[in-house]
Amino acid sequence: MPPKSPLAPKSFPKLPAVAGVRLAATACGIKKRGRPDLMVAELAPGTTVAGMFTKSLTAGPAVVWDRAAVKNGRGRAIVVNAGNANVFTGRKGAADVRATAMAVAKLLGCAADDVLVSSTGVIGVPLPVAKITRALPGVAKALKEGAWAAAAEAICTTDTFPKGAGTTARIGGTTVRIAGFAKGSGMIAPNMATMLGYVFTDAALPAPVLRKLLKETCDRSFNAITVDSDTSTSDTVLLAATGQAGKHPKVSRIDDPALKDFRKKLQAVMTDLAHQIVRDGEGATKFITVKVTGAASDRAAKVIAMSIANSPLVKTAIAGEDANWGRIVAAVGKAGERIDADRMTVSVGGVRITENGAPRKNYKEAPVACHMKGQYIDIAVDVAAKGGRGEATVWTCDLTHGYITINGDYRS
Amino acid sequence: MPPKSPLAPKSFPKLPAVAGVRLAATACGIKKRGRPDLMVAELAPGTTVAGMFTKSLTAGPAVVWDRAAVKNGRGRAIVVNAGNANVFTGRKGAADVRATAMAVAKLLGCAADDVLVSSTGVIGVPLPVAKITRALPGVAKALKEGAWAAAAEAICTTDTFPKGAGTTARIGGTTVRIAGFAKGSGMIAPNMATMLGYVFTDAALPAPVLRKLLKETCDRSFNAITVDSDTSTSDTVLLAATGQAGKHPKVSRIDDPALKDFRKKLQAVMTDLAHQIVRDGEGATKFITVKVTGAASDRAAKVIAMSIANSPLVKTAIAGEDANWGRIVAAVGKAGERIDADRMTVSVGGVRITENGAPRKNYKEAPVACHMKGQYIDIAVDVAAKGGRGEATVWTCDLTHGYITINGDYRS
Repeated sequence: MPPKSPLAPKSFPKLPAVAGVRLAATACGIKKRGRPDLMVAELAPGTTVAGMFTKSLTAGPAVVWDRAAVKNGRGRAIVVNAGNANVFTGRKGAADVRATAMAVAKLLGCAADDVLVSSTGVIGVPLPVAKITRALPGVAKALKEGAWAAAAEAICTTDTFPKGAGTTARIGGTTVRIAGFAKGSGMIAPNMATMLGYVFTDAALPAPVLRKLLKETCDRSFNAITVDSDTSTSDTVLLAATGQAGKHPKVSRIDDPALKDFRKKLQAVMTDLAHQIVRDGEGATKFITVKVTGAASDRAAKVIAMSIANSPLVKTAIAGEDANWGRIVAAVGKAGERIDADRMTVSVGGVRITENGAPRKNYKEAPVACHMKGQYIDIAVDVAAKGGRGEATVWTCDLTHGYITINGDYRS
Repeated sequence: MPPKSPLAPKSFPKLPAVAGVRLAATACGIKKRGRPDLMVAELAPGTTVAGMFTKSLTAGPAVVWDRAAVKNGRGRAIVVNAGNANVFTGRKGAADVRATAMAVAKLLGCAADDVLVSSTGVIGVPLPVAKITRALPGVAKALKEGAWAAAAEAICTTDTFPKGAGTTARIGGTTVRIAGFAKGSGMIAPNMATMLGYVFTDAALPAPVLRKLLKETCDRSFNAITVDSDTSTSDTVLLAATGQAGKHPKVSRIDDPALKDFRKKLQAVMTDLAHQIVRDGEGATKFITVKVTGAASDRAAKVIAMSIANSPLVKTAIAGEDANWGRIVAAVGKAGERIDADRMTVSVGGVRITENGAPRKNYKEAPVACHMKGQYIDIAVDVAAKGGRGEATVWTCDLTHGYITINGDYRS
């Protein structure tokens, strides 16, 4: 991997084993220099799954396959290769996904449509599928519980560190485990980007509940981050529940009080993974939190927050540690959502800079300039839309020379 | 000015004097190091004007003033300062615009609402309006025909060269002149960006015709370019017709056959100015033309073309001279407009790369790689929407280290 992002966590976290999830990874030869590039997760019989996918209209055949496969709510395996996105590869691309799923199904003794497939990497290059199918028997033999770090590393592309998060939660009197891993560092924008995330629990949750939990927690995590406004063709987040934790109260609705702790913990894991993607944003040196309040709706708040988070001028100013808050004002203005420009307020690092459509009389730049020198930048904007109570928080990183260097020469 | 863009024209063009337009510029002390920062254009009595402005909801008070002032269709003067955008400056900001307009009106003997005002530069800093009003009498004395280069230079901010374009046209048997100048190099996106443009003709054109001409030609010029997807608070394009060229057939409708040559020439001048802004895109080393065909409508085609032109991944790949056409496919997919991914085609430098949703069998990268090394990059995408005949062409530049350097430290 390239040198670690300055925002990377010190090390891969210790994650709980999730009963009913066995993992293995290998280097099948798609990536150069023998780097690991193939991961399989085996899921116990009876596992329920839910998925969320890219909204791109040029989505790859693996996304097309998974969208259909998650409909039955069951999953027995997830197979992911990195180094080749298998996108814009025509009929062969779709056939390669089917071949991969069938090979895994045969090895694990399940139906092909219980196998979920993801691919990430370069677009428009035929997938060397034989490398995958040849390597799969070895991977199947190596499957074991708790191999999170190896799995997380095998799905990386331009990532500078593998990303994992996990915790335990209580459902009734029973302790259940939640753990997952993710990848992504460029082409990251709302509605999924080149971003893969897999989260597992040994709780027993019916597929309809799982779907709602995934949607709810994605909206405030993977769908609330942006690195560069580019959305990918392969984005996938899967949530799987094995039901192997031991008996707990049966849950049939997302608002069941017994699910309260689980929901909170699942959100924490999802948010942690999403934040790690931002921390690994290509070239990132600063982690930026943008909170918008006082908007006409939560949706409007998110549009405005993303307008700020995606503004190259805001992001380069932050890279340059320049307290150029005027660019935040401009980004709010271009979002097109209802605001009151004469009453809106902009704060950076907790310091309110504006009032009545102008800088505050006693505004002093020094404390803001000092905040800009740190690694964590907080932007808060109240847009003062009349009667507006909509709010949203999104996360992004700065735009630096590193981004240009990484993306100017990705394929070579 | 900073070192000239490698895409800059060799020199400022020779432009025809436009009868009824007198110009002058000076350094009033807003910019540092005595650089020119104040420009006045005096327009003959009877001049008609039309304006197009930023759609930003945090538009500055000069834009608010001009929007109201152009309604009567008359204009006697344009005054522009650079170095301070007078945006987000509260009540003082609006008062400063009024004071500037009144000072010019008094000097030239016209009504204040016949004076159009623009400001460009940093946001959120009170305008030192006294510097402007003190300098105006000297500027008024220096007014003369044909001082285009001085006017163009005085409105620049991060521009690396002044931008001008002009030509002559025939209306009936009469020769009329068209000339103008513009500024802008960052914060450039459709719907105007930190972009100012002023175009003058000595034809006699009623204000309603002028408005339609401006809208039509802007849509295919200033509103078809993007540098960084950021829209500014101050964007303004004004078109003024002095009627001093000498008698020509009266024109009362935009589709009057007598106007055909003028329309074409006006479009050429507007497009030339817009292209010069892209050529001066912050950090630009390549001029990129994106043409989209086969879309459901012209509007859809423009959305897709802008999605490609604004994609940081496409722009960095081009900066790196990398024929990474997969990123073009991804940018088409994220645009959200109707396409047929299995039939769409992508061409770069005139070489068709894809067919049937995959790279062509005999696709060879060498000629495309060679095209990528040039300064002019052509991207053509036919999105094959069923029955689609919509098309659009937009222009942008690459995203380089230069952009980061310029914008990471703009204010210091």
